[in-house]
Amino acid sequence: MILVDGEYQDSIPVDDRGLAYGDGLFETIQIDNGRPVLWKRHFRRLQKGCGILGINVVDTDILLAECLQLCQNRNRGIIKIILTRGSGGRGYRPDKNSLTRRIISFHDWPEYPEDNVSTGIRLYRCSTPVSSNAHLAGLKTLCRLEQVLAQMEWDEAQFSEGLMLDDNKQVVEGTRSNVFIVKNDVLITPELKRSGIKGIMRGVIVDMAQSAGIQVQQRDLDHDEFIQADEIFLCNSIIKVWPVKEYQGKMYSTGNITRNIMRQLRQQLGDYE
Amino acid sequence: MILVDGEYQDSIPVDDRGLAYGDGLFETIQIDNGRPVLWKRHFRRLQKGCGILGINVVDTDILLAECLQLCQNRNRGIIKIILTRGSGGRGYRPDKNSLTRRIISFHDWPEYPEDNVSTGIRLYRCSTPVSSNAHLAGLKTLCRLEQVLAQMEWDEAQFSEGLMLDDNKQVVEGTRSNVFIVKNDVLITPELKRSGIKGIMRGVIVDMAQSAGIQVQQRDLDHDEFIQADEIFLCNSIIKVWPVKEYQGKMYSTGNITRNIMRQLRQQLGDYE
Repeated sequence: MILVDGEYQDSIPVDDRGLAYGDGLFETIQIDNGRPVLWKRHFRRLQKGCGILGINVVDTDILLAECLQLCQNRNRGIIKIILTRGSGGRGYRPDKNSLTRRIISFHDWPEYPEDNVSTGIRLYRCSTPVSSNAHLAGLKTLCRLEQVLAQMEWDEAQFSEGLMLDDNKQVVEGTRSNVFIVKNDVLITPELKRSGIKGIMRGVIVDMAQSAGIQVQQRDLDHDEFIQADEIFLCNSIIKVWPVKEYQGKMYSTGNITRNIMRQLRQQLGDYE
Repeated sequence: MILVDGEYQDSIPVDDRGLAYGDGLFETIQIDNGRPVLWKRHFRRLQKGCGILGINVVDTDILLAECLQLCQNRNRGIIKIILTRGSGGRGYRPDKNSLTRRIISFHDWPEYPEDNVSTGIRLYRCSTPVSSNAHLAGLKTLCRLEQVLAQMEWDEAQFSEGLMLDDNKQVVEGTRSNVFIVKNDVLITPELKRSGIKGIMRGVIVDMAQSAGIQVQQRDLDHDEFIQADEIFLCNSIIKVWPVKEYQGKMYSTGNITRNIMRQLRQQLGDYE
Protein backbone atom coordinates (compact mmCIF):
# COMPACT_ATOMS: atom_id res chain seq x y z
CA MET A 1 0.00 0.00 0.00
CA ILE A 2 1.83 3.04 -1.29
CA LEU A 3 0.61 6.54 -2.06
CA VAL A 4 2.65 8.60 -4.53
CA ASP A 5 1.39 12.19 -4.54
CA GLY A 6 -1.91 10.95 -3.17
CA GLU A 7 -2.51 8.18 -5.72
CA TYR A 8 -2.13 4.45 -5.12
CA GLN A 9 0.94 3.51 -7.16
CA ASP A 10 3.91 1.21 -6.94
CA SER A 11 6.29 3.09 -9.23
CA ILE A 12 7.83 6.54 -9.61
CA PRO A 13 9.17 8.39 -12.65
CA VAL A 14 12.68 7.27 -13.48
CA ASP A 15 13.87 10.90 -13.54
CA ASP A 16 13.02 11.44 -9.87
CA ARG A 17 15.88 13.33 -8.20
CA GLY A 18 15.63 11.16 -5.11
CA LEU A 19 16.85 8.26 -7.24
CA ALA A 20 19.36 10.27 -9.26
CA TYR A 21 21.05 12.16 -6.42
CA GLY A 22 19.55 11.17 -3.07
CA ASP A 23 17.86 14.56 -3.31
CA GLY A 24 15.26 14.14 -0.59
CA LEU A 25 14.40 13.21 3.00
CA PHE A 26 12.51 10.50 4.84
CA GLU A 27 10.81 9.69 8.13
CA THR A 28 9.96 6.37 9.74
CA ILE A 29 7.01 6.73 12.09
CA GLN A 30 5.37 4.36 14.56
CA ILE A 31 1.64 3.81 14.06
CA ASP A 32 -0.24 3.05 17.27
CA ASN A 33 -4.04 2.83 17.50
CA GLY A 34 -4.10 3.81 13.84
CA ARG A 35 -2.36 7.15 14.50
CA PRO A 36 1.21 8.32 13.88
CA VAL A 37 3.14 8.66 17.15
CA LEU A 38 5.11 11.91 17.71
CA TRP A 39 3.69 13.32 14.47
CA LYS A 40 4.54 16.95 15.22
CA ARG A 41 8.19 16.15 15.89
CA HIS A 42 8.49 14.04 12.72
CA PHE A 43 6.82 16.75 10.64
CA ARG A 44 9.01 19.50 12.14
CA ARG A 45 12.14 17.53 11.21
CA LEU A 46 10.86 17.13 7.62
CA GLN A 47 10.05 20.83 7.54
CA LYS A 48 13.51 21.77 8.81
CA GLY A 49 15.17 19.41 6.31
CA CYS A 50 13.15 20.85 3.43
CA GLY A 51 14.29 24.32 4.48
CA ILE A 52 17.98 23.34 4.46
CA LEU A 53 17.65 21.49 1.14
CA GLY A 54 15.50 24.22 -0.44
CA ILE A 55 12.72 21.73 -1.16
CA ASN A 56 9.14 23.05 -1.13
CA VAL A 57 7.56 21.69 2.04
CA VAL A 58 4.30 19.76 1.88
CA ASP A 59 1.34 20.93 3.95
CA THR A 60 1.14 19.02 7.23
CA ASP A 61 -2.61 18.41 6.81
CA ILE A 62 -2.12 16.78 3.41
CA LEU A 63 0.69 14.56 4.68
CA LEU A 64 -1.21 13.56 7.81
CA ALA A 65 -4.39 12.80 5.85
CA GLU A 66 -2.46 10.52 3.49
CA CYS A 67 -0.78 8.74 6.40
CA LEU A 68 -4.17 8.19 8.06
CA GLN A 69 -5.61 6.93 4.76
CA LEU A 70 -2.95 4.17 4.73
CA CYS A 71 -3.58 3.38 8.42
CA GLN A 72 -7.31 2.67 7.98
CA ASN A 73 -8.25 -0.63 9.63
CA ARG A 74 -4.70 -1.01 10.88
CA ASN A 75 -3.91 -0.64 14.50
CA ARG A 76 -0.17 -1.02 14.56
CA GLY A 77 2.63 -0.65 12.03
CA ILE A 78 5.08 1.77 10.50
CA ILE A 79 4.57 4.62 8.07
CA LYS A 80 7.51 5.67 5.94
CA ILE A 81 7.35 9.10 4.31
CA ILE A 82 9.81 9.99 1.53
CA LEU A 83 9.86 13.54 0.20
CA THR A 84 11.97 14.09 -2.92
CA ARG A 85 12.64 17.26 -4.89
CA GLY A 86 10.65 15.64 -7.71
CA SER A 87 11.78 15.70 -11.33
CA GLY A 88 13.51 18.31 -13.47
CA GLY A 89 16.55 20.54 -13.40
CA ARG A 90 19.82 20.31 -15.34
CA GLY A 91 22.10 17.73 -13.79
CA TYR A 92 22.70 18.48 -10.13
CA ARG A 93 21.16 21.95 -10.51
CA PRO A 94 17.48 21.75 -9.55
CA ASP A 95 14.57 23.54 -11.17
CA LYS A 96 13.45 26.22 -8.72
CA ASN A 97 9.82 25.36 -9.46
CA SER A 98 10.17 21.62 -9.01
CA LEU A 99 7.21 19.95 -7.31
CA THR A 100 8.04 17.99 -4.19
CA ARG A 101 7.12 14.32 -4.63
CA ARG A 102 5.67 12.53 -1.60
CA ILE A 103 5.87 8.75 -1.28
CA ILE A 104 4.06 7.27 1.71
CA SER A 105 4.03 3.56 2.49
CA PHE A 106 2.65 1.37 5.27
CA HIS A 107 4.73 -1.49 6.69
CA ASP A 108 3.95 -4.23 9.20
CA TRP A 109 5.21 -3.80 12.74
CA PRO A 110 8.54 -5.63 13.10
CA GLU A 111 8.75 -8.23 15.83
CA TYR A 112 12.05 -8.02 17.69
CA PRO A 113 13.08 -10.47 20.44
CA GLU A 114 11.68 -9.44 23.83
CA ASP A 115 15.20 -9.99 25.22
CA ASN A 116 16.41 -6.91 23.34
CA VAL A 117 14.47 -4.82 25.85
CA SER A 118 14.60 -6.98 28.97
CA THR A 119 18.26 -8.05 28.99
CA GLY A 120 19.82 -5.91 26.28
CA ILE A 121 21.62 -6.49 23.00
CA ARG A 122 25.07 -7.26 21.70
CA LEU A 123 26.49 -4.26 19.80
CA TYR A 124 28.87 -4.65 16.86
CA ARG A 125 31.56 -2.09 16.01
CA CYS A 126 31.29 -1.17 12.32
CA SER A 127 34.40 -0.32 10.37
CA THR A 128 32.43 1.69 7.78
CA PRO A 129 32.73 5.29 8.97
CA VAL A 130 29.94 7.85 9.04
CA SER A 131 30.56 10.73 6.62
CA SER A 132 31.27 14.14 8.09
CA ASN A 133 29.48 17.12 6.55
CA ALA A 134 28.49 20.03 8.76
CA HIS A 135 25.83 21.22 6.27
CA LEU A 136 23.89 17.94 6.26
CA ALA A 137 24.53 16.77 9.83
CA GLY A 138 21.39 15.84 11.75
CA LEU A 139 19.16 15.44 8.68
CA LYS A 140 17.57 12.16 7.59
CA THR A 141 18.42 12.51 3.90
CA LEU A 142 18.07 9.76 1.30
CA CYS A 143 21.90 9.44 1.13
CA ARG A 144 22.27 6.42 3.41
CA LEU A 145 24.71 4.21 1.54
CA GLU A 146 27.15 4.11 4.45
CA GLN A 147 24.43 2.68 6.73
CA VAL A 148 23.76 -0.01 4.10
CA LEU A 149 27.46 -0.91 3.95
CA ALA A 150 27.73 -0.88 7.73
CA GLN A 151 24.82 -3.32 8.14
CA MET A 152 26.45 -5.67 5.63
CA GLU A 153 29.44 -6.03 7.94
CA TRP A 154 27.85 -8.29 10.55
CA ASP A 155 25.54 -11.26 10.85
CA GLU A 156 22.10 -10.40 12.25
CA ALA A 157 22.08 -13.56 14.35
CA GLN A 158 25.14 -12.36 16.26
CA PHE A 159 24.46 -8.67 16.87
CA SER A 160 21.26 -6.62 16.98
CA GLU A 161 22.84 -3.31 15.98
CA GLY A 162 26.16 -1.79 14.90
CA LEU A 163 27.98 1.28 16.21
CA MET A 164 29.35 3.80 13.71
CA LEU A 165 32.24 6.21 14.28
CA ASP A 166 33.45 9.08 12.15
CA ASP A 167 36.88 9.28 10.50
CA ASN A 168 38.23 10.84 13.73
CA LYS A 169 37.10 7.87 15.87
CA GLN A 170 34.34 9.86 17.53
CA VAL A 171 31.21 7.86 18.32
CA VAL A 172 28.29 9.08 16.16
CA GLU A 173 25.34 6.66 16.19
CA GLY A 174 24.06 3.17 15.52
CA THR A 175 23.30 2.23 11.92
CA ARG A 176 19.58 2.86 12.59
CA SER A 177 19.57 4.31 16.09
CA ASN A 178 21.05 7.00 18.28
CA VAL A 179 23.31 6.14 21.16
CA PHE A 180 23.44 7.28 24.79
CA ILE A 181 25.87 6.45 27.57
CA VAL A 182 25.66 7.07 31.30
CA LYS A 183 28.82 7.93 33.21
CA ASN A 184 28.74 9.00 36.88
CA ASP A 185 24.98 9.65 36.64
CA VAL A 186 25.36 11.98 33.63
CA LEU A 187 23.53 11.08 30.40
CA ILE A 188 25.77 11.73 27.39
CA THR A 189 24.92 11.57 23.67
CA PRO A 190 26.91 12.71 20.61
CA GLU A 191 26.06 16.27 19.58
CA LEU A 192 25.80 15.39 15.83
CA LYS A 193 27.10 18.76 14.61
CA ARG A 194 29.30 17.21 11.91
CA SER A 195 27.52 13.96 11.08
CA GLY A 196 24.71 11.58 12.00
CA ILE A 197 20.93 11.81 12.19
CA LYS A 198 19.17 13.63 15.02
CA GLY A 199 16.57 11.01 15.85
CA ILE A 200 13.08 11.88 17.07
CA MET A 201 13.33 9.41 19.98
CA ARG A 202 16.73 10.88 20.86
CA GLY A 203 15.05 14.29 21.20
CA VAL A 204 12.24 12.91 23.35
CA ILE A 205 14.71 11.15 25.65
CA VAL A 206 16.80 14.31 26.07
CA ASP A 207 13.64 16.26 26.97
CA MET A 208 12.35 13.55 29.33
CA ALA A 209 15.68 13.21 31.09
CA GLN A 210 16.02 16.96 31.59
CA SER A 211 12.45 17.15 32.94
CA ALA A 212 13.33 14.37 35.38
CA GLY A 213 16.36 16.31 36.65
CA ILE A 214 18.95 14.06 35.00
CA GLN A 215 22.03 15.94 33.81
CA VAL A 216 22.31 15.63 30.01
CA GLN A 217 25.34 16.43 27.87
CA GLN A 218 25.22 16.61 24.07
CA ARG A 219 28.86 16.72 23.03
CA ASP A 220 31.74 14.90 21.34
CA LEU A 221 32.03 11.33 22.57
CA ASP A 222 35.37 9.62 22.10
CA HIS A 223 35.41 5.84 21.57
CA ASP A 224 37.64 5.29 24.63
CA GLU A 225 35.17 7.19 26.81
CA PHE A 226 32.31 5.22 25.27
CA ILE A 227 33.84 1.90 26.29
CA GLN A 228 34.26 3.11 29.88
CA ALA A 229 30.54 3.91 30.21
CA ASP A 230 28.53 2.74 33.22
CA GLU A 231 25.47 2.17 31.00
CA ILE A 232 24.90 2.20 27.23
CA PHE A 233 21.61 2.24 25.36
CA LEU A 234 20.31 2.77 21.82
CA CYS A 235 17.04 4.31 20.70
CA ASN A 236 14.86 5.03 17.71
CA SER A 237 11.17 5.65 17.02
CA ILE A 238 10.43 1.97 16.48
CA ILE A 239 12.60 0.09 18.99
CA LYS A 240 12.29 2.83 21.66
CA VAL A 241 15.20 1.80 23.95
CA TRP A 242 17.50 -1.20 23.73
CA PRO A 243 20.08 -1.44 26.53
CA VAL A 244 23.50 -2.69 25.39
CA LYS A 245 24.64 -5.75 27.34
CA GLU A 246 27.87 -6.44 25.45
CA TYR A 247 30.25 -4.41 23.32
CA GLN A 248 33.63 -5.66 22.15
CA GLY A 249 33.70 -8.41 24.77
CA LYS A 250 32.89 -6.08 27.67
CA MET A 251 29.65 -6.62 29.60
CA TYR A 252 27.29 -3.81 30.63
CA SER A 253 24.22 -3.99 32.83
CA THR A 254 20.99 -2.06 32.47
CA GLY A 255 21.54 0.65 35.09
CA ASN A 256 19.23 2.96 36.98
CA ILE A 257 19.16 5.82 34.52
CA THR A 258 18.46 3.53 31.55
CA ARG A 259 15.64 1.86 33.54
CA ASN A 260 14.30 5.27 34.51
CA ILE A 261 14.19 6.40 30.85
CA MET A 262 12.56 3.13 29.74
CA ARG A 263 9.88 3.46 32.43
CA GLN A 264 9.15 7.07 31.52
CA LEU A 265 8.83 6.13 27.85
CA ARG A 266 6.31 3.41 28.71
CA GLN A 267 4.29 5.71 30.95
CA GLN A 268 4.58 9.16 29.38
CA LEU A 269 5.33 8.86 25.65
CA GLY A 270 1.68 9.74 24.97
CA ASP A 271 2.24 13.16 26.56
CA TYR A 272 4.70 14.06 23.78
CA GLU A 273 3.63 14.90 20.26
CA MET B 1 14.42 7.07 -24.30
CA ILE B 2 15.14 5.02 -21.22
CA LEU B 3 15.84 1.32 -20.80
CA VAL B 4 15.13 -0.22 -17.38
CA ASP B 5 16.51 -3.76 -17.27
CA GLY B 6 16.42 -3.83 -21.05
CA GLU B 7 12.80 -2.67 -21.47
CA TYR B 8 11.64 0.76 -22.61
CA GLN B 9 10.14 2.31 -19.49
CA ASP B 10 9.86 5.65 -17.80
CA SER B 11 9.29 4.45 -14.24
CA ILE B 12 10.91 2.22 -11.63
CA PRO B 13 9.46 0.33 -8.66
CA VAL B 14 9.00 2.62 -5.69
CA ASP B 15 10.89 0.16 -3.45
CA ASP B 16 14.11 0.54 -5.45
CA ARG B 17 17.04 0.86 -3.05
CA GLY B 18 18.61 3.56 -5.19
CA LEU B 19 15.69 5.81 -4.24
CA ALA B 20 15.43 4.66 -0.64
CA TYR B 21 19.12 4.85 0.30
CA GLY B 22 21.22 6.07 -2.63
CA ASP B 23 22.23 2.40 -2.86
CA GLY B 24 23.82 2.42 -6.31
CA LEU B 25 26.26 3.98 -8.76
CA PHE B 26 26.17 5.92 -11.99
CA GLU B 27 28.25 6.86 -15.03
CA THR B 28 27.89 9.74 -17.48
CA ILE B 29 29.44 8.83 -20.82
CA GLN B 30 30.11 10.82 -23.98
CA ILE B 31 28.62 9.36 -27.17
CA ASP B 32 30.62 10.15 -30.30
CA ASN B 33 29.89 8.62 -33.70
CA GLY B 34 27.18 6.58 -32.01
CA ARG B 35 29.70 4.87 -29.66
CA PRO B 36 30.49 5.40 -25.97
CA VAL B 37 33.87 7.10 -25.50
CA LEU B 38 36.29 5.55 -22.95
CA TRP B 39 33.86 2.66 -22.43
CA LYS B 40 36.38 0.33 -20.81
CA ARG B 41 37.34 2.91 -18.20
CA HIS B 42 33.72 3.74 -17.39
CA PHE B 43 32.84 0.05 -17.10
CA ARG B 44 35.87 -0.68 -14.91
CA ARG B 45 34.83 2.08 -12.50
CA LEU B 46 31.31 0.63 -12.32
CA GLN B 47 32.79 -2.82 -11.76
CA LYS B 48 35.06 -1.55 -8.98
CA GLY B 49 32.17 0.35 -7.36
CA CYS B 50 29.93 -2.74 -7.49
CA GLY B 51 32.70 -4.69 -5.78
CA ILE B 52 33.02 -2.19 -2.93
CA LEU B 53 29.23 -1.90 -2.51
CA GLY B 54 28.68 -5.65 -2.81
CA ILE B 55 26.30 -5.17 -5.75
CA ASN B 56 26.19 -7.90 -8.39
CA VAL B 57 27.94 -6.50 -11.44
CA VAL B 58 26.20 -6.48 -14.82
CA ASP B 59 27.87 -8.15 -17.78
CA THR B 60 29.75 -5.59 -19.88
CA ASP B 61 28.31 -6.98 -23.13
CA ILE B 62 24.73 -6.54 -21.91
CA LEU B 63 25.38 -2.99 -20.73
CA LEU B 64 27.20 -2.03 -23.93
CA ALA B 65 24.47 -3.55 -26.13
CA GLU B 66 21.81 -1.55 -24.31
CA CYS B 67 23.83 1.66 -24.61
CA LEU B 68 24.26 1.07 -28.35
CA GLN B 69 20.54 0.35 -28.69
CA LEU B 70 19.79 3.83 -27.30
CA CYS B 71 22.45 5.40 -29.57
CA GLN B 72 20.92 4.10 -32.82
CA ASN B 73 20.61 6.92 -35.37
CA ARG B 74 22.26 9.30 -32.93
CA ASN B 75 25.72 10.55 -33.58
CA ARG B 76 26.39 12.63 -30.52
CA GLY B 77 25.01 12.81 -27.00
CA ILE B 78 25.34 11.47 -23.49
CA ILE B 79 24.48 8.09 -22.03
CA LYS B 80 23.78 7.90 -18.30
CA ILE B 81 23.96 4.49 -16.67
CA ILE B 82 22.51 3.99 -13.19
CA LEU B 83 23.04 0.65 -11.43
CA THR B 84 21.08 0.16 -8.22
CA ARG B 85 21.01 -2.78 -5.82
CA GLY B 86 17.40 -3.31 -6.95
CA SER B 87 14.58 -4.02 -4.52
CA GLY B 88 14.32 -6.05 -1.34
CA GLY B 89 16.09 -6.43 1.97
CA ARG B 90 15.03 -5.36 5.47
CA GLY B 91 15.63 -1.67 5.98
CA TYR B 92 19.25 -0.80 5.28
CA ARG B 93 20.22 -4.49 5.26
CA PRO B 94 20.15 -5.73 1.65
CA ASP B 95 18.97 -9.08 0.39
CA LYS B 96 22.08 -11.01 -0.65
CA ASN B 97 20.28 -12.24 -3.75
CA SER B 98 18.97 -8.85 -4.87
CA LEU B 99 19.03 -8.33 -8.62
CA THR B 100 20.97 -5.29 -9.80
CA ARG B 101 18.67 -2.86 -11.62
CA ARG B 102 20.11 -1.07 -14.66
CA ILE B 103 18.66 2.22 -15.86
CA ILE B 104 20.15 3.58 -19.09
CA SER B 105 19.08 6.87 -20.62
CA PHE B 106 20.15 8.93 -23.63
CA HIS B 107 20.47 12.73 -23.37
CA ASP B 108 21.18 15.44 -25.92
CA TRP B 109 24.68 16.82 -26.11
CA PRO B 110 24.84 20.00 -24.01
CA GLU B 111 26.03 23.14 -25.76
CA TYR B 112 28.42 25.14 -23.59
CA PRO B 113 29.87 28.53 -24.59
CA GLU B 114 32.96 28.15 -26.79
CA ASP B 115 34.62 30.71 -24.50
CA ASN B 116 34.72 28.13 -21.69
CA VAL B 117 37.43 26.33 -23.68
CA SER B 118 39.13 29.20 -25.51
CA THR B 119 39.42 31.78 -22.72
CA GLY B 120 38.43 29.84 -19.61
CA ILE B 121 35.75 30.09 -16.96
CA ARG B 122 35.01 31.92 -13.73
CA LEU B 123 35.10 29.50 -10.79
CA TYR B 124 32.91 29.97 -7.71
CA ARG B 125 33.93 28.85 -4.22
CA CYS B 126 31.15 26.73 -2.71
CA SER B 127 30.54 26.85 1.02
CA THR B 128 28.84 23.43 1.01
CA PRO B 129 31.61 21.01 1.98
CA VAL B 130 32.27 17.62 0.40
CA SER B 131 31.69 14.76 2.85
CA SER B 132 34.68 12.77 4.01
CA ASN B 133 34.36 8.99 4.07
CA ALA B 134 37.41 6.87 3.30
CA HIS B 135 35.26 3.82 2.39
CA LEU B 136 33.29 5.61 -0.35
CA ALA B 137 35.96 8.05 -1.58
CA GLY B 138 36.49 7.98 -5.34
CA LEU B 139 33.20 6.25 -6.19
CA LYS B 140 30.39 7.83 -8.20
CA THR B 141 27.57 6.73 -5.91
CA LEU B 142 23.97 7.95 -6.08
CA CYS B 143 24.49 9.95 -2.84
CA ARG B 144 25.12 13.37 -4.43
CA LEU B 145 23.01 15.69 -2.33
CA GLU B 146 25.98 17.86 -1.41
CA GLN B 147 26.68 18.53 -5.11
CA VAL B 148 23.03 19.55 -5.54
CA LEU B 149 23.26 21.97 -2.60
CA ALA B 150 26.59 23.33 -3.85
CA GLN B 151 25.17 24.09 -7.31
CA MET B 152 22.26 25.96 -5.70
CA GLU B 153 24.73 28.41 -4.16
CA TRP B 154 25.55 30.39 -7.29
CA ASP B 155 23.93 31.85 -10.39
CA GLU B 156 24.78 29.99 -13.60
CA ALA B 157 25.11 33.25 -15.50
CA GLN B 158 27.98 34.34 -13.23
CA PHE B 159 30.07 31.19 -12.82
CA SER B 160 30.44 28.06 -14.93
CA GLU B 161 31.48 25.75 -12.09
CA GLY B 162 31.97 25.70 -8.32
CA LEU B 163 34.92 24.46 -6.25
CA MET B 164 34.26 22.21 -3.27
CA LEU B 165 36.49 21.78 -0.22
CA ASP B 166 36.26 19.28 2.60
CA ASP B 167 35.68 20.17 6.26
CA ASN B 168 39.47 20.59 6.65
CA LYS B 169 39.68 23.21 3.87
CA GLN B 170 41.43 20.84 1.50
CA VAL B 171 40.50 21.28 -2.17
CA VAL B 172 38.58 18.21 -3.40
CA GLU B 173 36.86 18.82 -6.75
CA GLY B 174 34.38 20.86 -8.74
CA THR B 175 30.68 20.09 -8.27
CA ARG B 176 30.75 18.05 -11.51
CA SER B 177 34.43 18.02 -12.43
CA ASN B 178 37.88 17.22 -11.14
CA VAL B 179 40.44 19.94 -10.62
CA PHE B 180 44.12 20.26 -11.56
CA ILE B 181 46.62 22.99 -10.85
CA VAL B 182 50.07 23.61 -12.32
CA LYS B 183 52.79 25.01 -10.06
CA ASN B 184 56.42 25.31 -11.22
CA ASP B 185 55.72 22.93 -14.15
CA VAL B 186 54.30 20.22 -11.86
CA LEU B 187 50.72 19.03 -12.46
CA ILE B 188 48.91 18.55 -9.14
CA THR B 189 45.47 17.07 -8.45
CA PRO B 190 43.82 16.03 -5.16
CA GLU B 191 44.41 12.38 -4.31
CA LEU B 192 40.74 11.76 -3.33
CA LYS B 193 41.53 9.19 -0.63
CA ARG B 194 38.98 10.59 1.82
CA SER B 195 36.36 12.16 -0.45
CA GLY B 196 35.43 13.11 -4.01
CA ILE B 197 34.89 11.21 -7.25
CA LYS B 198 37.79 9.83 -9.27
CA GLY B 199 36.72 11.05 -12.69
CA ILE B 200 37.43 9.10 -15.88
CA MET B 201 38.82 12.19 -17.63
CA ARG B 202 41.00 12.87 -14.58
CA GLY B 203 42.51 9.41 -15.04
CA VAL B 204 43.10 9.93 -18.76
CA ILE B 205 44.80 13.29 -18.11
CA VAL B 206 47.08 11.81 -15.45
CA ASP B 207 48.06 9.02 -17.87
CA MET B 208 48.56 11.42 -20.80
CA ALA B 209 50.64 13.84 -18.74
CA GLN B 210 52.87 11.09 -17.41
CA SER B 211 53.37 9.72 -20.94
CA ALA B 212 54.36 13.20 -22.06
CA GLY B 213 56.98 13.44 -19.33
CA ILE B 214 55.08 15.96 -17.21
CA GLN B 215 55.60 15.47 -13.47
CA VAL B 216 52.25 14.60 -11.84
CA GLN B 217 51.45 14.65 -8.13
CA GLN B 218 48.23 13.19 -6.68
CA ARG B 219 48.19 14.45 -3.11
CA ASP B 220 46.49 16.74 -0.57
CA LEU B 221 45.95 20.22 -2.00
CA ASP B 222 45.47 23.01 0.50
CA HIS B 223 43.25 25.95 -0.50
CA ASP B 224 46.09 28.46 0.02
CA GLU B 225 48.31 26.47 -2.34
CA PHE B 226 45.45 26.24 -4.84
CA ILE B 227 45.11 30.03 -5.01
CA GLN B 228 48.86 30.41 -5.66
CA ALA B 229 48.71 28.13 -8.73
CA ASP B 230 50.31 29.15 -12.04
CA GLU B 231 47.47 27.45 -13.97
CA ILE B 232 44.13 25.91 -12.94
CA PHE B 233 41.85 23.71 -15.01
CA LEU B 234 38.79 21.51 -14.57
CA CYS B 235 37.85 18.35 -16.42
CA ASN B 236 35.15 15.75 -16.87
CA SER B 237 34.05 13.29 -19.55
CA ILE B 238 31.70 15.79 -21.19
CA ILE B 239 33.45 19.17 -20.95
CA LYS B 240 36.95 17.66 -21.36
CA VAL B 241 39.06 20.61 -20.10
CA TRP B 242 37.96 24.09 -19.05
CA PRO B 243 40.80 26.42 -18.00
CA VAL B 244 39.97 28.66 -15.04
CA LYS B 245 40.46 32.34 -15.84
CA GLU B 246 39.20 33.79 -12.54
CA TYR B 247 38.84 32.53 -9.00
CA GLN B 248 37.97 34.75 -6.04
CA GLY B 249 38.95 37.90 -7.93
CA LYS B 250 42.36 36.56 -9.00
CA MET B 251 43.07 36.14 -12.72
CA TYR B 252 44.75 33.07 -14.22
CA SER B 253 45.90 32.51 -17.78
CA THR B 254 45.80 29.29 -19.77
CA GLY B 255 49.42 28.20 -19.45
CA ASN B 256 51.65 25.86 -21.41
CA ILE B 257 50.85 22.65 -19.57
CA THR B 258 47.08 23.23 -19.74
CA ARG B 259 47.41 23.94 -23.50
CA ASN B 260 49.54 20.83 -23.90
CA ILE B 261 46.90 18.65 -22.18
CA MET B 262 44.08 20.20 -24.22
CA ARG B 263 45.97 19.56 -27.48
CA GLN B 264 46.71 15.97 -26.54
CA LEU B 265 43.05 15.37 -25.66
CA ARG B 266 41.98 16.71 -29.07
CA GLN B 267 44.54 14.62 -30.93
CA GLN B 268 44.88 11.41 -28.92
CA LEU B 269 41.71 10.77 -26.91
CA GLY B 270 40.76 8.12 -29.49
CA ASP B 271 43.82 6.10 -28.48
CA TYR B 272 42.39 5.60 -25.00
CA GLU B 273 39.55 3.23 -24.25
